[in-house]
Amino acid sequence: MNAVKSYDPEKISVATLASHTALQILLAAHKHGFRTIALSAEVNMPFYKSFSFIDEVWPVTPSSLDKMDSELISRNAVIIPHGSMVEYFGPSITRLRTPIFGNRHLIDWERNQESKMKLLREAGIPTPRTYSSPTEASVPAIVKLYGAKGGRGYFLARNREELALKCSTLTEPYIIQEYVIGVPAYYHYFSSKMRGRIEIFGADIRYETNVDGRIPGLADPTFVVVGNLPLTLRESLLPKILKYGEAFAEAVERNIPPGLIGPYCLESIIRDDMEIVVFEYSGRIVAGTNVYAALGSPYSALYFGKPIDMGERIALEIEEAAAGNRLEDVTT
Amino acid sequence: MNAVKSYDPEKISVATLASHTALQILLAAHKHGFRTIALSAEVNMPFYKSFSFIDEVWPVTPSSLDKMDSELISRNAVIIPHGSMVEYFGPSITRLRTPIFGNRHLIDWERNQESKMKLLREAGIPTPRTYSSPTEASVPAIVKLYGAKGGRGYFLARNREELALKCSTLTEPYIIQEYVIGVPAYYHYFSSKMRGRIEIFGADIRYETNVDGRIPGLADPTFVVVGNLPLTLRESLLPKILKYGEAFAEAVERNIPPGLIGPYCLESIIRDDMEIVVFEYSGRIVAGTNVYAALGSPYSALYFGKPIDMGERIALEIEEAAAGNRLEDVTT
Amino acid sequence: MNAVKSYDPEKISVATLASHTALQILLAAHKHGFRTIALSAEVNMPFYKSFSFIDEVWPVTPSSLDKMDSELISRNAVIIPHGSMVEYFGPSITRLRTPIFGNRHLIDWERNQESKMKLLREAGIPTPRTYSSPTEASVPAIVKLYGAKGGRGYFLARNREELALKCSTLTEPYIIQEYVIGVPAYYHYFSSKMRGRIEIFGADIRYETNVDGRIPGLADPTFVVVGNLPLTLRESLLPKILKYGEAFAEAVERNIPPGLIGPYCLESIIRDDMEIVVFEYSGRIVAGTNVYAALGSPYSALYFGKPIDMGERIALEIEEAAAGNRLEDVTT
Repeated sequence: MNAVKSYDPEKISVATLASHTALQILLAAHKHGFRTIALSAEVNMPFYKSFSFIDEVWPVTPSSLDKMDSELISRNAVIIPHGSMVEYFGPSITRLRTPIFGNRHLIDWERNQESKMKLLREAGIPTPRTYSSPTEASVPAIVKLYGAKGGRGYFLARNREELALKCSTLTEPYIIQEYVIGVPAYYHYFSSKMRGRIEIFGADIRYETNVDGRIPGLADPTFVVVGNLPLTLRESLLPKILKYGEAFAEAVERNIPPGLIGPYCLESIIRDDMEIVVFEYSGRIVAGTNVYAALGSPYSALYFGKPIDMGERIALEIEEAAAGNRLEDVTT
Repeated sequence: MNAVKSYDPEKISVATLASHTALQILLAAHKHGFRTIALSAEVNMPFYKSFSFIDEVWPVTPSSLDKMDSELISRNAVIIPHGSMVEYFGPSITRLRTPIFGNRHLIDWERNQESKMKLLREAGIPTPRTYSSPTEASVPAIVKLYGAKGGRGYFLARNREELALKCSTLTEPYIIQEYVIGVPAYYHYFSSKMRGRIEIFGADIRYETNVDGRIPGLADPTFVVVGNLPLTLRESLLPKILKYGEAFAEAVERNIPPGLIGPYCLESIIRDDMEIVVFEYSGRIVAGTNVYAALGSPYSALYFGKPIDMGERIALEIEEAAAGNRLEDVTT
Repeated sequence: MNAVKSYDPEKISVATLASHTALQILLAAHKHGFRTIALSAEVNMPFYKSFSFIDEVWPVTPSSLDKMDSELISRNAVIIPHGSMVEYFGPSITRLRTPIFGNRHLIDWERNQESKMKLLREAGIPTPRTYSSPTEASVPAIVKLYGAKGGRGYFLARNREELALKCSTLTEPYIIQEYVIGVPAYYHYFSSKMRGRIEIFGADIRYETNVDGRIPGLADPTFVVVGNLPLTLRESLLPKILKYGEAFAEAVERNIPPGLIGPYCLESIIRDDMEIVVFEYSGRIVAGTNVYAALGSPYSALYFGKPIDMGERIALEIEEAAAGNRLEDVTT
């Protein structure tokens, strides 16, 4: 049974790991009248404690989440999961009794790289070709370790020699993907159960070190994400981008009920024939939404008349769910 | 006679092709109390219909504009033209009796690449050298087909051999331009007939595939625009940028009465001696203004105390013209 | 004696050189009820006079500042210094009797490149290795003339031959710095005496010609700053970035009382091991804050509930100081 049934809808708390997008999530939750709880690694507690919109900062370790379950529930807490939180706590997060905003089953589904990509293909979204061995791969190619995260664990092979040589040194499992020639673009969406629609929210480009350094050729390219830049898309691309977002949401709904709830992201390369090739996705809020924090995104104004950020979009959804006694529809 | 004379200034509609900058134009028009009409290709109608600020979505084809003329006039419609609309409807747009916000004669003028660039030179604005044949050109050079659009139909030649070889394969007419070494910067302006001034509005950088991909040398560079990034200019450049904008407006006024009305754009490279070289312009709203959609631009606050977007700037101009019974001054 | 003691705290004027960040400073000062004075080079006066939020535009030359001292004091003026103002007026700025918002002694301290970098090292912030001769330097290296400014006076040497050759042609004094491989990131802070805290305000990337042109290899890279792009940082970097900002403020306070007042900036490369290497700083407002002009920065909302720009942050500090009769605490 979803613990949210026992919650007082007028006394909801919002909790998340103090990292990634916690600041925008908690600031917006505070503005919407929710109590805010930051689950913080010891070292970062002073930083998060310095902000008055965060009501409570709880110390956590990767293994301490289970112990907080009852305490979170007693506070009527809803957890907003994000990539760093999923990584930090590992599988223990989906075992919590505390309600999670979004679909917790998707977190488990994503642990398998094969089934993960299947959702995209089933949605009819173009994806890069994938190769299981260096000999059958085309070049340039990108090699991705199974545990790749935050831009670490990738490398580029420009030619067959480089690919064979680099792969021969790997001891971990990996996949080889076609390196699609074009420009990166990450699309943010929101699946609203309360309003029954998929909203296009924004887009960003990742800022990666060292590949976004400005003098090429000084070192091998690496792809460690250190920030994000706001991207405004050509308007003629938007109908297709929204269509892909909707198709993806339908594929998730078919495979992993109750489907997508709240923010998600498709991560693409746009080729020079304007084809969008999606190489990855996130089933929850991405750090790229931070580019709109507090200011709001241009596209959100299309739905709400004024720009709001993703933290506000989440807070609004929870608020509407609480008001309509429908918190079960937005949590798992 | 300008059909706008027959309009009820309290019941103006705003119409544009559903693409390019339609969303910011129509959202702002709606906020200012105008009725909004999106002229949409069949395939994009569901997308535009999903937004409540768009009152009507009319199906169009490239050849159907003429047939809508009377209907548009009966709605007191003012058309906001943009680059995609001019391209989509071709010369038929300037034959409409429906009033166009801006100077429709400039649209015809721009069809000739020679006379187009003449306006910049007449304004005393530095432009790239142009060559009529590969043998007289300096390298690196950019070769531009007459019908180049949205970043398609350009290519770079790094040396004389590449230039000669590539030009020899072309069957369409083209011009060869000096490839100016520096960084691109696009400046947005607004020529206000109601306030009698040129305003500097903002700046952007285009995001082009595949040239803005991050690993150079994997493929020949292409320049297909897929988005825009906001650019904040060094303040010491602003007086010169505004001066160029004013000089250009004067050149248009001399050559193509009644001159510039509403948004326009100068498209430049800034060299490392801080010289600004303008290689192209647009006589109407550019997609780069989308980077400020809903949020507003920093420079607009210098005139209005708070940031507004280009859609709002247009709506404000029409509103002031309607209130002062001067719609004839902002339409042709 | 600080002339601010004689000021009527209800009739403060804000003055700055008309360049760099003057527009955001003066617009915000105007909104907070201060009288605004732009000190402008003759050629730029029409530009600055065109904005109604600037109450007075005074003509200046590099040598005319001394003569304005009494006039500024009679207006109860507080000067907001910025990099272009310090460069334009040279040492004469620190001899003024007119109160300067911030620590004027830091301006003198920074004239010596050696003591300048000492502050960073004393704060325990990682800095690039520095070499006094080309023979002991590692490559790639960046060579920086003592008078380097706004991105001029730098060059890159990729290998030892290039380094030796280029250095041999220099007649001015220079330093050689390790060229740190990674991506640039500039962090904006505000040291508030009124609220007793260091605030993290925002971040930007410089847009430099010609190095940010998109076709590498067409010319030697140059680094002339022509604009700025907004950067949103990975949230997990923020605690460290704030810690560096605080450590730097403490180092300044120990060495140059009364320490940092108002805006400052640390200028870094982020390596792909996530290490932040600070190669430069500014003890006052940087042009990078212009990316948030009028719109406000995401991080400022963490402190104030809504986004404000750096001009507003300064105006708020002066307003609070004036209200509490503490203008002496924010000026020198």
